Amino acid sequence: MRHADILITHGLIVTFDQTETIIPDGALAIAGSDIIALGSTENLSAQFQAREQIDATQHLVTPGLINTHTHSPMALFRGLADDLELAPWLARMRDAARQVIRPATVARGAELAYAEMLLGGTTTALDMYFFPETLAAVAKRVGLRLITGPVFVAHEVSDHLRADERLARGREFMQAYRADPLVVPCVMPHSPQDVPLSLLAQAQKLADEFNALLSIHVSETAAEVANVVAQRGALPVEFLDQLGMLSARSILAHGIHLTDAEIARVAQRGAVIAHCPISNLKLGDGVAPVPKLLRAGVRVTLGTDGPASSNDLDLWKVVRLAAILHRGVQQDSTLTPARQILRMATIDAAKALGLDDRIGSLQVGKRADLILIDLDSPHLVPFFDAYSLLTYAVGREDVSTVLVNGQVVVRDRQLLNLNQADTIAAVREIAAQAATA
Amino acid sequence: MRHADILITHGLIVTFDQTETIIPDGALAIAGSDIIALGSTENLSAQFQAREQIDATQHLVTPGLINTHTHSPMALFRGLADDLELAPWLARMRDAARQVIRPATVARGAELAYAEMLLGGTTTALDMYFFPETLAAVAKRVGLRLITGPVFVAHEVSDHLRADERLARGREFMQAYRADPLVVPCVMPHSPQDVPLSLLAQAQKLADEFNALLSIHVSETAAEVANVVAQRGALPVEFLDQLGMLSARSILAHGIHLTDAEIARVAQRGAVIAHCPISNLKLGDGVAPVPKLLRAGVRVTLGTDGPASSNDLDLWKVVRLAAILHRGVQQDSTLTPARQILRMATIDAAKALGLDDRIGSLQVGKRADLILIDLDSPHLVPFFDAYSLLTYAVGREDVSTVLVNGQVVVRDRQLLNLNQADTIAAVREIAAQAATA
Repeated sequence: MRHADILITHGLIVTFDQTETIIPDGALAIAGSDIIALGSTENLSAQFQAREQIDATQHLVTPGLINTHTHSPMALFRGLADDLELAPWLARMRDAARQVIRPATVARGAELAYAEMLLGGTTTALDMYFFPETLAAVAKRVGLRLITGPVFVAHEVSDHLRADERLARGREFMQAYRADPLVVPCVMPHSPQDVPLSLLAQAQKLADEFNALLSIHVSETAAEVANVVAQRGALPVEFLDQLGMLSARSILAHGIHLTDAEIARVAQRGAVIAHCPISNLKLGDGVAPVPKLLRAGVRVTLGTDGPASSNDLDLWKVVRLAAILHRGVQQDSTLTPARQILRMATIDAAKALGLDDRIGSLQVGKRADLILIDLDSPHLVPFFDAYSLLTYAVGREDVSTVLVNGQVVVRDRQLLNLNQADTIAAVREIAAQAATA
Repeated sequence: MRHADILITHGLIVTFDQTETIIPDGALAIAGSDIIALGSTENLSAQFQAREQIDATQHLVTPGLINTHTHSPMALFRGLADDLELAPWLARMRDAARQVIRPATVARGAELAYAEMLLGGTTTALDMYFFPETLAAVAKRVGLRLITGPVFVAHEVSDHLRADERLARGREFMQAYRADPLVVPCVMPHSPQDVPLSLLAQAQKLADEFNALLSIHVSETAAEVANVVAQRGALPVEFLDQLGMLSARSILAHGIHLTDAEIARVAQRGAVIAHCPISNLKLGDGVAPVPKLLRAGVRVTLGTDGPASSNDLDLWKVVRLAAILHRGVQQDSTLTPARQILRMATIDAAKALGLDDRIGSLQVGKRADLILIDLDSPHLVPFFDAYSLLTYAVGREDVSTVLVNGQVVVRDRQLLNLNQADTIAAVREIAAQAATA
């Protein structure tokens, strides 16, 4: 008998591997952080002796979801200022941030947000916010796979770093997490507008120095595009390309108002668009041209955006909306089929983040980042097709068990590494202060 | 001390009454089917002695949601044929229906669907499907408030009724339920296309005879509009108006492809549009002109549509999408604010159905159709605004307790009047037959 730490049995395993293998009555063996075997329950039960066995009868087993754009500590401000236009909303958020944001409150916001994401089946998130070292520490503690790093912004900001400190601290962060098992460093200039050119250049240099991911907002609103053209004399994508910011390591959030030439440029450079349809609709930003992006060969992933705009961190709702929105708007029900959208939230996201050697599909040699979905709910009955069910009916509440990096972090819908009641109480106190800002 | 059957205490009560009263630390007393008092916990606790007390600490208490368009037994076919165009999808559904639909299977589909709706906080549904007497019996057994009645369709249908039988049986149904406490009879001609003129006329006559609601699909696809024009020589709304089918008792499902003149006519007649954005987007039908409808004074309510198209019966997702969709498409974040959309799912729906003397808001004298929403979840923290939270963050899984007509039907997220495991097992068997159709 071979040894495994965990043996999952009797699940319907949806692998998202190259041939989109689905294993009925499937089993999966884990040792340390890794998947070491995958196959029928009969075969693996005969081969493996495991410290812990997880019975996945009447459950789907799938890769954890990957959220490629959020600002998670803004969970502190969820619902504080809804139904406003973008500019007054941003102003209200800045006032609230000025009032309460510091490392201790960011830690509480991140705890709440990471709890929400893990409970809902998101196992990896790209998180852009101040105090990345705080975010990283919380992620490692609760057990979320995190992509984060130094933010480069313009206006008076909550971390009070001087420009030279920002770069030095940023380099320290990139250095500290370059080989971390859970945290992936990423350089995060805020946007092509407003941020001084010198800061954008610093950010790009840092990303190149570490051959790291770079994430930036692009073309979220028509007003922003006009502003970039006025400030920079070029369209946003052209401007980023001039700075060398458009590469296969670039994750561009939103990408709504793009010309055909910009789309072609994004595709040519291999850059990624993180599509955030719930936030985009709610804020009145517009509808990203996803079918056109896909036809042009652009890599598209999915994101919730921050919970102050979206207002939750439920990637299932983003999956469903991304699948149906473009069909409805273009009156073509053959666009964006379920399986393609689910790939955007799993294996295609892993590829976009350069992490497909580790995550995004259930395959031997990859990390065990996976979720169990309980099929014994009225809204998940009957079962005809796994991809349809996952896209159009599964919700965050159906996720019963979550593993990240081989560790069980949610069992029977309960977080194992966080005192949830304590976090909720702390966030309620912080929010009371934000409400008076 | 006054007597109450149930006293709910310490809830944040969102009433949806005329002045949109919100009662912090609120209480609500129920006797029989009715709300008999509403106020502060302090006052009501001093006044009432209750058989049962429900502690709503850290819960919102709101009216149950009202789903104004579904075909619930199609839950049997959830996910059977997704990502197809409308015509092949309808054909596949018809084949599956021919294979398995009969009263016993419809009862199982309805059990499953009503379970899903009640668990998710929907307390009233307008349900268009064959065998309305079966639907009514299931609704009364599980405790859902139901609007249903005889369907008038064209093509070979699953109930095998002859035209004369259809009218006689329809009249019997309307008679039987005219004063039922839970079931509201409604005449349901399928659509202005394909259904013979004689059947449409029969349906209208029946609705007039009982002064009853009438529900019909209108302008779901551009192809359907073209077809009606070809068949009837008039636009769908004009054609319905010629038949006398456009009144304040008419619930028109979808209403996507409407001319300005049709919109004006709908407004003038006081007819209602049941907006079903999830189904409409998924099937590639288009985006209903909701902001324009509202500006024209049309009454708009919300629906999931059937779970074979939508694919679940979660009205919270419809609420969220209805709030954000039109903003995004029109790039105007001031459209369709949270509170307005929530009214469409509660008090405005009750008015549209002519049931606002009974349901839609929490007020003394109305039936106790209400839900408790558990706020102790990461995705519902912090709390700033009840309408924002309900629209943008609450999900079906947050509903912990549900009362319909004064009776507790869901307690601690469990149905009281249905053996859920038994229903799920039965539906899985029926679905296995449908898969081979």
